[in-house]
Amino acid sequence: MANPLYIPELQEMLASNDVEAIKIFLHTLHPLRTADFMENLEPKEIWAILQHAETPLKVEIFGFFDEAIQVDIIEQADRKSAALFIGDLPPDDRVDMLQDVEPDIVDELMPMVPVEERRNIQRLQSYEEETAGAEMTTDFARLHEDMSVGEALQEIIRQAEELETIYYLYVVDEHDHLRGLVSAKKLIASMTNPQRPLHEIMETDLVTVRIDEDQEEVARKVARYDLLAIPVVDEQHQMLGIITHDDVLDMMVEEMTEDAYLSAAVAPLSETYLETSIPIMSWKRGVWLTVLFFGSSLTALLLTQAETSLATVAWLMSFVPLVISTGGNSGNQSATLIITALSTHEITVGDWVRVVKREFATGILLGGFLAFCGYLLALVLGFLLKQPGITPFTALVIPITLVLVTLFGTLTGSLLPLLFRRLGLDPALMSNPLVACLCDVSGIFIYLVVAQLMLL
Amino acid sequence: MANPLYIPELQEMLASNDVEAIKIFLHTLHPLRTADFMENLEPKEIWAILQHAETPLKVEIFGFFDEAIQVDIIEQADRKSAALFIGDLPPDDRVDMLQDVEPDIVDELMPMVPVEERRNIQRLQSYEEETAGAEMTTDFARLHEDMSVGEALQEIIRQAEELETIYYLYVVDEHDHLRGLVSAKKLIASMTNPQRPLHEIMETDLVTVRIDEDQEEVARKVARYDLLAIPVVDEQHQMLGIITHDDVLDMMVEEMTEDAYLSAAVAPLSETYLETSIPIMSWKRGVWLTVLFFGSSLTALLLTQAETSLATVAWLMSFVPLVISTGGNSGNQSATLIITALSTHEITVGDWVRVVKREFATGILLGGFLAFCGYLLALVLGFLLKQPGITPFTALVIPITLVLVTLFGTLTGSLLPLLFRRLGLDPALMSNPLVACLCDVSGIFIYLVVAQLMLL
Repeated sequence: MANPLYIPELQEMLASNDVEAIKIFLHTLHPLRTADFMENLEPKEIWAILQHAETPLKVEIFGFFDEAIQVDIIEQADRKSAALFIGDLPPDDRVDMLQDVEPDIVDELMPMVPVEERRNIQRLQSYEEETAGAEMTTDFARLHEDMSVGEALQEIIRQAEELETIYYLYVVDEHDHLRGLVSAKKLIASMTNPQRPLHEIMETDLVTVRIDEDQEEVARKVARYDLLAIPVVDEQHQMLGIITHDDVLDMMVEEMTEDAYLSAAVAPLSETYLETSIPIMSWKRGVWLTVLFFGSSLTALLLTQAETSLATVAWLMSFVPLVISTGGNSGNQSATLIITALSTHEITVGDWVRVVKREFATGILLGGFLAFCGYLLALVLGFLLKQPGITPFTALVIPITLVLVTLFGTLTGSLLPLLFRRLGLDPALMSNPLVACLCDVSGIFIYLVVAQLMLL
Repeated sequence: MANPLYIPELQEMLASNDVEAIKIFLHTLHPLRTADFMENLEPKEIWAILQHAETPLKVEIFGFFDEAIQVDIIEQADRKSAALFIGDLPPDDRVDMLQDVEPDIVDELMPMVPVEERRNIQRLQSYEEETAGAEMTTDFARLHEDMSVGEALQEIIRQAEELETIYYLYVVDEHDHLRGLVSAKKLIASMTNPQRPLHEIMETDLVTVRIDEDQEEVARKVARYDLLAIPVVDEQHQMLGIITHDDVLDMMVEEMTEDAYLSAAVAPLSETYLETSIPIMSWKRGVWLTVLFFGSSLTALLLTQAETSLATVAWLMSFVPLVISTGGNSGNQSATLIITALSTHEITVGDWVRVVKREFATGILLGGFLAFCGYLLALVLGFLLKQPGITPFTALVIPITLVLVTLFGTLTGSLLPLLFRRLGLDPALMSNPLVACLCDVSGIFIYLVVAQLMLL
């Protein structure tokens, strides 16, 4: 994204202390583009340029840098002005950022952060990660219900500059208990009669989240109700903060990325693909690969055991990978369908009977068709390659096994995520590689049993 | 979600035509909850109740029904009032809904829809699916740049009731060319000086999408710039519509669900898991399963061919599933990491050299460790189960193969999605099952070659 073309110009402006040019640069572009242009400067240089923007613009541009760059900028800035600047940042963003700043530097900075902001930081830091409390911001527009519409608009004009969003206005009592909500749109539309009291136009059936609710639930509610922001309350319905739509979008991307990683047996990464060091990446992948490796080593054990008894029907061995991958693939499909349906709330654990019926029927249909293909394949290979021992009767081992492994795949693939959800675990844990591993081992077992029963 | 408790009460209110009670019901709850409560009524009954709400509320409640219910309601309503109601619906939503209404009924309805709205529907229907044009709404707040801040607020007070969102105000010239943007927040904050001309406070470096841009690109821009809505323009920068944040959230869920399905080789479903009929579900899954089946049947071919030459080292066959699943698992991991990094724009195709280097290093590390485990496993099985032919030398086939298949997995798993993106195809197509199938076949090939070279 960064545009290296502007770098020399910007450095030149700084060197000659051309304040006028710097100000023009800061004000011309969208703050994100301004941030992009500065991305490749030294943190010190970025900080020096930002000093020429007023606080709201400075905060906005700063917010568009990647967190790693934000951390660098804060770490190298002189402590005093960095601490004051932290006081101006949005409450939710600065808590996230401070997690990555050197602890020693945080210890130096915190005493210099204005006292009210410091308390705010400490409170937000106390909430558990991935809960509503940890994601919320404490800046929101408050109104009192005895105001008139006209007074409310005046109050919002006063508060607007300092708030991240003024599009939902929260009506609270003197102890900050949430009484209602007026959208800025409703307020503006009601200005045709500015004397009307606020409580007449406010909504009172509100969608809220509790401070300890999981971020997944937050995202679900915001998406379902098409909200711009959702209020975060405690058990006494006291209003503690809001979570805005842009943070919800980020949460959803984070959750879905985590699910995608889990679906390929990669432990969640805390940085991006390219930023993660190779030893850490190998560790995040190696843990799961090793678990799967030892799971799969059961297949070697089973096959070594069976080898002697099956020596007379050696051709059976050639079909092992085909049989087990068919079970694994159908299991994957079912697992992914169920995990996705659970996470988009299309189904709940209570639907398990319907799921079993559907997966049973689908498994029979799919297994039946693949069994037909597999029978043909066995006969053709037996005939063309003159494999000893493949006859129309012995070849029946293949289709019978294929129906059974497909059915096993669809049923375990669908039931395990439901079971995991029921147990309070993340259903995505039961995703592709684990289901596939389970299907591998069981597939070989089924294959050997069918072969034993039919051929020996 | 639906609450069956209210159903009898609502039917009673309708039967006794208790207008007062119906109005209270319609106005008390959040429109989504009102919709939820009515969900299990007959479409006719819902329509009758909705007649007692004024248009904006009627439109809002209606918007919260599932699309299937919306279609039922419209299909059974008397044509005349349904057509008028369609004229009041948000332009983007009604186009989506009309796709699913019986074509005969649409033909009857359309001539009765007010002419301007009808033209609007026809225009939106002409854009290709999954482009900005197909997703946008044409309702947005327009202002002229020669207005003052105070006049602009008056104008917005006038427009507010009819618009879906008034939080971004678009400044256009007389031919609707987009000149700038003023957020409602900025406008309200500027009311301290209502005489100031609008063009002094408007932003002019705007983030826009072209009418034919893909919805993925729309979602990326909205997420990256934390926008509430994004303007849709043509090549002449004429403003055609906007896409709002809630539609972007829906798009992202849709895109990521599609990716999840692809990652398990399921063709995209047009309905939810439970709504999709079993024959259609079997078809969507069966197509891919069959492709994978025939891919995997190459393993049977390879193994049948090799059997005679490897007859002397029968124990090798026992390790086939372990060897190929290791390659498949590491390939899956790489594919998922790269597909996710591409879709979240962490990497581009241009990063392929860095990707290859990283995956090579990771592959060596992971493969090396698994090779060590595999060597131990082979020796232990050989010793414990007294497998003939497993010696410290012959067992080396296993670790050598494991390093090679892991490396093959990480490299193909990462390069294939990049190649697909480069070719303009969806990288998610190259996802788990296909990569796994490729790794299966190649894994067996590698294994046989190593065994041939070392043992024969």
